[in-house]
Amino acid sequence: MHTLKFTAESISNGMVERDFTVGDVPGVLWSPASGATDRAPLVLMGHGGGNHKKHPAMSGRARLLVAGCGFHVAVIDAPGHGDRPRTAHDEEEIAALFRAREAGEPEGAIVVRYNSHLAELAVPEWRTVLDALQELPEIGADGPVGYYGINMGTAIGVPLMAVEPRITAAVLGQHWPDVLAEKAKQITVPIEFDMQWDDEHIPRESALALFDAFASKEKTLHANSGKHKELPRFEADSAVRFFARHLGRSVAAPA
Amino acid sequence: MHTLKFTAESISNGMVERDFTVGDVPGVLWSPASGATDRAPLVLMGHGGGNHKKHPAMSGRARLLVAGCGFHVAVIDAPGHGDRPRTAHDEEEIAALFRAREAGEPEGAIVVRYNSHLAELAVPEWRTVLDALQELPEIGADGPVGYYGINMGTAIGVPLMAVEPRITAAVLGQHWPDVLAEKAKQITVPIEFDMQWDDEHIPRESALALFDAFASKEKTLHANSGKHKELPRFEADSAVRFFARHLGRSVAAPA
Repeated sequence: MHTLKFTAESISNGMVERDFTVGDVPGVLWSPASGATDRAPLVLMGHGGGNHKKHPAMSGRARLLVAGCGFHVAVIDAPGHGDRPRTAHDEEEIAALFRAREAGEPEGAIVVRYNSHLAELAVPEWRTVLDALQELPEIGADGPVGYYGINMGTAIGVPLMAVEPRITAAVLGQHWPDVLAEKAKQITVPIEFDMQWDDEHIPRESALALFDAFASKEKTLHANSGKHKELPRFEADSAVRFFARHLGRSVAAPA
Repeated sequence: MHTLKFTAESISNGMVERDFTVGDVPGVLWSPASGATDRAPLVLMGHGGGNHKKHPAMSGRARLLVAGCGFHVAVIDAPGHGDRPRTAHDEEEIAALFRAREAGEPEGAIVVRYNSHLAELAVPEWRTVLDALQELPEIGADGPVGYYGINMGTAIGVPLMAVEPRITAAVLGQHWPDVLAEKAKQITVPIEFDMQWDDEHIPRESALALFDAFASKEKTLHANSGKHKELPRFEADSAVRFFARHLGRSVAAPA
């Protein structure tokens, strides 16, 4: 069993930020500055491809979740990302992706293949990290757990949730259904799913097919006009309200 | 020109409720109890087929808009609905709809046809009522105006907005694209559009086609699992936030 070791601690924007490791996996745990050790629900977040655990998209969403609901929020670096080493295979796949982009060729097949590989590595890592996080008294073994990850965060989140009953609600989106749709059919917890209506990488029908695949009785699709990278900021606010509803918290008034 | 005449006034649930008429059209104007005569944005609401201006779906949404943002909210009875007389044509169409329902036949063609007829009557009525409402000092001729109507409220709202530039944001949804899609192509203001993913009356592809038709640069589709009548309550909260963003108000903390 791997235990969680805190390696650094700082305070900013009303959050306690604690860096940690579980085995070789580096992560960050954000908590309310006014109650970092108070018991509260946990939201796991998966970062996007090419990003890392403290990318502004992660710290920004964490701030909304921590300030809005007092949640604890944990992110780990995916394999080959952030503070983790890249393998020769990682380098090859990234080079293939960049070649496709420069040539103006579709990148879907490469992203699907590489993300699927990373998910195979990341799923057991997440389960071990969740074991270790639940050893902390402020999280506990029986507290509610959500998952929030778009793009690569969904490529990892869907297979994780297919085998992980501790995650009881998730905000996902912006991925192809290949590989993931079969896993999504095993997921029954409430889902909010984001897609971009004019996504230049993920065909509209593909995004709709992945949403359709979830077996969840309660699921909501949010489709916004705009291209792949134009997901509106207000969807992060919506995610906070989703987790408030499903993990049992109310949302504080906006600052 | 028709002027607005107030015919009754009461206070409940923190709202002033003022009944009014504009010519033959009866309506209701809900305003904050603590500032019924304060200038604030106006939201017009269209009720559903078979309902009326004070149906609980209307008063409930009004309460969220008034308490949450201090908006004024106006609803009028559609032709043949609420306090308005039914014509022989209304009776025939309603009988045709009930026959189809009892026989388990699709009702879409009848609803589309009848709603289109009602919209032809209702659009000029709404424009006259809006003229009259804008004579009130608490609304004014230059204040922001939104429109919120699902089902028949969308059948009337889409042709209204196609000719009415004063409406600058709308929450719509749950209707067939026949008749409406061509009008939706003329609409460019921000739209939030609700559909039910498992709607037993409106085929999924039809709902997606109507959303797709809007020319709006900013548009958001909210698709929820469930049947036609199972639109989740939280979509009304989302509508309040949509109007707060687009009509220039912030949302108060939930009571």
